[in-house]
Amino acid sequence: METDLLIIGAGPAGYTASIYASRYKINHIVIGELMGGQAGEAHKVCNFPGITEKSGIELMQMFSEHAKSLGAEFLTDKVIKIEKKEPGFSVETSRNGTISAKTILLAIGTSHRKLGIERENEMLGKGVSYCVTCDGAFFKDKVVAVVGGSDAANSASVYLSQMAKKVYQIYRGEELRGESTWVNDVLSNDKIEVIFNTNIVELGGKDQLEFIVLDREYNGSNKLAVDGLFIEIGSAPGKALINHLEIKTDPEGYIEITQEQRTSVEGIWAAGDVTTGSNKFRQIVTASAEGAVAASDIFKYLKTKGN
Amino acid sequence: METDLLIIGAGPAGYTASIYASRYKINHIVIGELMGGQAGEAHKVCNFPGITEKSGIELMQMFSEHAKSLGAEFLTDKVIKIEKKEPGFSVETSRNGTISAKTILLAIGTSHRKLGIERENEMLGKGVSYCVTCDGAFFKDKVVAVVGGSDAANSASVYLSQMAKKVYQIYRGEELRGESTWVNDVLSNDKIEVIFNTNIVELGGKDQLEFIVLDREYNGSNKLAVDGLFIEIGSAPGKALINHLEIKTDPEGYIEITQEQRTSVEGIWAAGDVTTGSNKFRQIVTASAEGAVAASDIFKYLKTKGN
Repeated sequence: METDLLIIGAGPAGYTASIYASRYKINHIVIGELMGGQAGEAHKVCNFPGITEKSGIELMQMFSEHAKSLGAEFLTDKVIKIEKKEPGFSVETSRNGTISAKTILLAIGTSHRKLGIERENEMLGKGVSYCVTCDGAFFKDKVVAVVGGSDAANSASVYLSQMAKKVYQIYRGEELRGESTWVNDVLSNDKIEVIFNTNIVELGGKDQLEFIVLDREYNGSNKLAVDGLFIEIGSAPGKALINHLEIKTDPEGYIEITQEQRTSVEGIWAAGDVTTGSNKFRQIVTASAEGAVAASDIFKYLKTKGN
Repeated sequence: METDLLIIGAGPAGYTASIYASRYKINHIVIGELMGGQAGEAHKVCNFPGITEKSGIELMQMFSEHAKSLGAEFLTDKVIKIEKKEPGFSVETSRNGTISAKTILLAIGTSHRKLGIERENEMLGKGVSYCVTCDGAFFKDKVVAVVGGSDAANSASVYLSQMAKKVYQIYRGEELRGESTWVNDVLSNDKIEVIFNTNIVELGGKDQLEFIVLDREYNGSNKLAVDGLFIEIGSAPGKALINHLEIKTDPEGYIEITQEQRTSVEGIWAAGDVTTGSNKFRQIVTASAEGAVAASDIFKYLKTKGN
């Protein structure tokens, strides 16, 4: 397979880049493992302008349909490796063989940050989850805990309170952060109890999560009995795919970009959550804008290369 | 009237900033003369992600309804003058007296530079357009003209050549300006014919543009039959409102911003087309993103000031 532009990632940045690329008549392919990326996991999106309220997956379906209506080619697949060749790149995929691409847009997003405590991986799917919309429904009338104190954690608690019997929100800070609407919704919700200045240090239970251990006492004990634990402490950029390409990143691993969304490697752009752009305010609308800027610059670049 | 944040401008940047401000529970007012700003003029918007196709005004209505549903206060009014006072600003309006604002977001957009000939306003949307990406697709297999000789006009001609039967590019100068790539692309394109040293003096046609009149003969006639005319002689940021504030602008008058969308004057942010942001790729989605970033930073700023 050959293409002028390979867009890696099918979230807001990738879809929007594809929409613009189609409008510019750039021959391109979008490759992604999961439609919508992390945005697709949001149970409620209330701040994408023009769309008063949708679930993340509904909104991402709208993006996807928009992109597809303009003729973009989509592959549900995983990129294994990107190699520089002259000119362009050779991209190895899991199911579609090798794709030859003149330019690449990395719209690969971020993945959920982990607590980094023992048994966290072992307990995944056994009470521990990184996605309330995926797994929340399993905890009807149960007791759950949410870790974190920003938008993702606050909205997760509110969402879970609709089905769980009780929600503990455990936060290492003194005050919840993010949108005040979510903060108020948490603090005024009878089912949610916020435990501030506290960390989780251990996960307990036999085959299934039964309790968590806190680093200080709460109501006379370090142990808190819970059926589920939702970890909502932010995201980290994926590095595996780009490590060998020597793309410049900041100390946290976010890809450094120019104002044209170019990375330090010629022929590779980046857009969305994975970059240092948009003042690191990682939103659907900012990721989309970065995708648009990238596509516009890729169009100019391909033109200079005689496309 | 008093407010923590006064958003000046009711286009994509202003609306999105208001949506985010409401979610942050920032007490704010949006003041604008015309709902939707320049975006509201587009006959068709096909590249705002998730919305496959809407008129500019329909899309802006969606933005407006979204913003209003979250409780924002809107004033259809004109700002006459902004004056610094300690703390904050005193803003004189045309109909609502003086508004006292702790912070200001300038989302005032730009306006299309016009040819300044008769019937130019009347023919808008009837063959005359200021936006190829918005309206180019309507001229499939038609004859169009582009006015101008710099990057915007050159890229407009190239873009239109992909769908139109014939593109005349009319330029008052002797030689196309801007990037050589674009210039070469124009000059080497069989569908594009550049008419140098020439101005358009009249627009002809009954209810729809049918021909343009040139100020000198071309191929034996002053009249040139065209179905569409794209005026690409640039945009200009409004300066009147900010001149006396000593806000730093680039040589073209666009407001210079930090990555937080802050201007050089403390307490004043800017977002959207009027800024130097988003690689100057002035789109609804980029303006929206800038509005979101600004609101998020204004929230932090007001917090540090004890709000």
